[in-house]
Amino acid sequence: MSYQPPLREHLFILRDVLAIDQYGNLPGFADASLDVVEQILDEAAKFTSEVLAPLNSVGDKEGCTWRPDNTVTTPKGFKEAYKALVAGGWPALESDPAFGGQGLPGVIGMAFSEMSSSANMAFSMYPGLTHGAYSAIAVGGSPEQKALYLPKLASGEWGGTMNLTEPHCGTDLGLLRTKAVPMGDGSYRITGQKIWISGGEHDLTENIIHLVLARIEGAPGGTRGISLFIVPKFIPNADGTPGKRNSTYCAGLEEKMGIHGNATCVMSHEEATGWLVGEENRGLAVMFVMMNEARLGVGLQGLAQAEAAYQAAVAFARERLQMRSLTGPKNPEGPADPIIVHPDVRRMLLDSRAILEAGRAFLFWTALHGDLALHHPDDAVRQKSEDYMGLMTPVLKGYLTDRGFNICSDAMQVHGGSGFTEHFPVSQYLRDCRITLIYEGTNGIQALDLVGRKLAANGGRAVMSFFAELDAFIDANADDDSLTIFVEGLAAAKAQLQEGAFWLMRNGLANPDNAGAASTDYMHLFGLTGLAYMWALMAKAANARIAAGDADPYYANKLTVGRYFVERILPNAPAHLAKLKTGAATMMSYPAEAF
Amino acid sequence: MSYQPPLREHLFILRDVLAIDQYGNLPGFADASLDVVEQILDEAAKFTSEVLAPLNSVGDKEGCTWRPDNTVTTPKGFKEAYKALVAGGWPALESDPAFGGQGLPGVIGMAFSEMSSSANMAFSMYPGLTHGAYSAIAVGGSPEQKALYLPKLASGEWGGTMNLTEPHCGTDLGLLRTKAVPMGDGSYRITGQKIWISGGEHDLTENIIHLVLARIEGAPGGTRGISLFIVPKFIPNADGTPGKRNSTYCAGLEEKMGIHGNATCVMSHEEATGWLVGEENRGLAVMFVMMNEARLGVGLQGLAQAEAAYQAAVAFARERLQMRSLTGPKNPEGPADPIIVHPDVRRMLLDSRAILEAGRAFLFWTALHGDLALHHPDDAVRQKSEDYMGLMTPVLKGYLTDRGFNICSDAMQVHGGSGFTEHFPVSQYLRDCRITLIYEGTNGIQALDLVGRKLAANGGRAVMSFFAELDAFIDANADDDSLTIFVEGLAAAKAQLQEGAFWLMRNGLANPDNAGAASTDYMHLFGLTGLAYMWALMAKAANARIAAGDADPYYANKLTVGRYFVERILPNAPAHLAKLKTGAATMMSYPAEAF
Repeated sequence: MSYQPPLREHLFILRDVLAIDQYGNLPGFADASLDVVEQILDEAAKFTSEVLAPLNSVGDKEGCTWRPDNTVTTPKGFKEAYKALVAGGWPALESDPAFGGQGLPGVIGMAFSEMSSSANMAFSMYPGLTHGAYSAIAVGGSPEQKALYLPKLASGEWGGTMNLTEPHCGTDLGLLRTKAVPMGDGSYRITGQKIWISGGEHDLTENIIHLVLARIEGAPGGTRGISLFIVPKFIPNADGTPGKRNSTYCAGLEEKMGIHGNATCVMSHEEATGWLVGEENRGLAVMFVMMNEARLGVGLQGLAQAEAAYQAAVAFARERLQMRSLTGPKNPEGPADPIIVHPDVRRMLLDSRAILEAGRAFLFWTALHGDLALHHPDDAVRQKSEDYMGLMTPVLKGYLTDRGFNICSDAMQVHGGSGFTEHFPVSQYLRDCRITLIYEGTNGIQALDLVGRKLAANGGRAVMSFFAELDAFIDANADDDSLTIFVEGLAAAKAQLQEGAFWLMRNGLANPDNAGAASTDYMHLFGLTGLAYMWALMAKAANARIAAGDADPYYANKLTVGRYFVERILPNAPAHLAKLKTGAATMMSYPAEAF
Repeated sequence: MSYQPPLREHLFILRDVLAIDQYGNLPGFADASLDVVEQILDEAAKFTSEVLAPLNSVGDKEGCTWRPDNTVTTPKGFKEAYKALVAGGWPALESDPAFGGQGLPGVIGMAFSEMSSSANMAFSMYPGLTHGAYSAIAVGGSPEQKALYLPKLASGEWGGTMNLTEPHCGTDLGLLRTKAVPMGDGSYRITGQKIWISGGEHDLTENIIHLVLARIEGAPGGTRGISLFIVPKFIPNADGTPGKRNSTYCAGLEEKMGIHGNATCVMSHEEATGWLVGEENRGLAVMFVMMNEARLGVGLQGLAQAEAAYQAAVAFARERLQMRSLTGPKNPEGPADPIIVHPDVRRMLLDSRAILEAGRAFLFWTALHGDLALHHPDDAVRQKSEDYMGLMTPVLKGYLTDRGFNICSDAMQVHGGSGFTEHFPVSQYLRDCRITLIYEGTNGIQALDLVGRKLAANGGRAVMSFFAELDAFIDANADDDSLTIFVEGLAAAKAQLQEGAFWLMRNGLANPDNAGAASTDYMHLFGLTGLAYMWALMAKAANARIAAGDADPYYANKLTVGRYFVERILPNAPAHLAKLKTGAATMMSYPAEAF
């Protein structure tokens, strides 16, 4: 059985947990009643499972082809699928109607993105980065730039890329060398080499708009002298059609462990013509708009690969007959029982499900805060939602991709030897998923962003809001016997997360290495607490349905997975706290030459 | 920097921790004084790093080639390297001198195997399985079979394979269908298809000896009707030269995620001529000799890939300049600091080192017990050592491969985006390592073997011996202040492991699903306790060197890594105990159709 979009899960979160109907008065939500959302997601499920999923393996096996004339051909079928994507209006789902978008809430866009990424991650990166370029120009571009580029990027007619990394600098953008020389006519000549540029060249769109970080001649060194430029593959004519070919070329493709269907390009900008986006030397601020969106998207990719791998594992576990149940035959007519009867197989599947269900809820909950931050009339709500977006982005990126990769590995394990062969899809999910722990800032960088920046920002306002929200939920539900294990689990996790935060305050300022040493464990503790909250919210919503007489076993099953989470996943929380509190002394005392 | 065999670690374990000199009176050990061992390992290090390591990437990229005439070509250079391997006498290191072997202790063979597997896992599987075939015939074969086959297998002139799996049965060998028809002359006609046969066909040796599980016509169904057969590719002439081509063919190669340099064959036995090994219907018992050896070997492979990946990560972390240390520049003349200054990078490297150093010690300690089980004059020692071999084999296989894969993944993470490209070696280590969690019994099967068989065997004799040994060590060293953290850490882990065992006794018998549900967490708890013991032994040995005035910083560094283990790895133990004690109720109550 191939990938099936988890529509039921999406609707439960949107309807019962987030209750998006309550926001009908906000822009975008008015057009997103639950009925409409259900129709959109039905169509999305059809498109992604019928058009994109069948090309996933093709993309892996065939990969992209670079030719000496600097062109890149995508795998067979990608071009047609991309045409169908644009024709269906999918890239424009959450873009501004002023630029031809449909203006739907970001949380709906996220539901589509999950399906699209599960069905075909390598393919979905093309429109994904295009949307990032759209967002960066929407935030930082001039009115003329918006008018010229946004409609084409919103529709997906043109592609977009992020050009950050150079051979000697990835994380450390302050070292970048690509230079920009002003030509006096408002344009610049951009020269330099960029690597690992996803979708840097391909045959899917008539034009590609590169967003390139470069240093204007004479600008300061380090991160304070970096500017952002629009460098189109074809310089647009006044009427918006692609004009003269710019001198920006794909010099080759990277050979990678996965995402073979996406062209990872070495880009050579050779006195290419570019235009400044926003102010001189302030390029990183705009690029971070694109990067934050991308980080949340990468967390989603990790979850999406894990969901697809999990589904493959379930299908295999139902069909594969091997050994008898430890408690007697469950399939007595067959030669053996399906392996889904074995507890250790169920352990792997439920470990996965418990993370997937709550991880998705956490992503959607955060995306909804992104919508509220943009559209809510109340200043306080907008500020809190914006704080949450900043706080949760590194947590979701780091935690969900780490766990997502584990889920892919467990899915392979359920397959036994079959999983290691390329006849089954799980090797590709595992290989494709692995990049999500790395790109858009490694998970170590996410953890540092969390403990070094996001926790402390505005005097800790964001995390204090979150703790207060958790306390309020715990207090309000303390007497609900049907929620006891969920509320207790959440309270314990929250107490540990708070203790970790206090430890960081006491020890991280005195010695920043303590913060660095604690960062990854703290990020995981945060992720666990977030998921514990989601499980409490989901259990409450499921209880409400059951209390209202809904006999669908879906709700009782939801509670079972939640109980499994509390029993089998939450015990990791004290381990993370114990580790982080040991500090940096031991690890920093080890001599570098002794490693 | 390419792979460098960790000779210093090997010598510390053999000399200071295991003190193999004390066994000079046992067969094999007399020829293995520390001086001699050091010379052997020096030569092994040269051979593996200079001959095998350079072919690792070649094997990955080129893979093996199957041709319609059923021949298989190994990657360029493998044939010459294999000749050098045989010429160097490496395959015969620990084989019986009666059959041309060198008769060295198994623990020395293990040291060589680690280097060989780190340098080139896919290549090393060819002699590895050959040695397994040697062992099976040595245990179960007739004197004539031994005389005919063992010298050629010991030297590596002929290859050997294990033919167990069929398309519909891997773990569940009772379902196997390959049949054997007696011909009345002592030979059988073997017919059936076997899959995933490592080294089933290749161009490295003049003959290949398949050990094939099959059911003799009329034998009982299930595992009680399975016999083991020798099925040579070329039927040996009386003078030992390869004679007539047998009708056993490689029908194709498996496309896999890793170990591309090893030929994973579909084998078609078409009325092939074979000879029974041991008794009719008792084939599994003999095959388990081969399998247990293979399982320990797979644990070693997991560690070996992790060691190689760790070394690559260290080299990268020393060279890659990116960002400044959180506590001020450490490389002020350079554009940035090497990333090894960053705590989160050190966390990944020390997580790895803490497992690698103690995991290797645990493997060698167990291999030494294998030698004692064979050669020690005292019955009680032999029995205890044999018990330990049985008990530790699933722990080492499951725990070290699970952790080994994590280490490979962390090594990729240290590389950042470079790690995901195939220009660096770490992708191959990660992909090659992944099979070690699966083959020779998935890690879930190892965990079941541990809790379902090994714990309970002989009334729990093996685990009781182990607990008594730990208690004796803890008591004897309780007053040694220089060992406090190690002894306390070990005592805590041992108490948790014992609590887990008691929980299993109380709950696993009443409901076997509880044992299944607890098995993987219990296996990890066992692995952690074993490593805690090894760290205590290593710390004691390092302290002794320091007390004796040895100024080599190696010993102080050893203690630092040990402290890191107690602080940062051992906190996983209570999490495993908490999880396993939740039992099977929740996971078994989830409906199969709801997954």
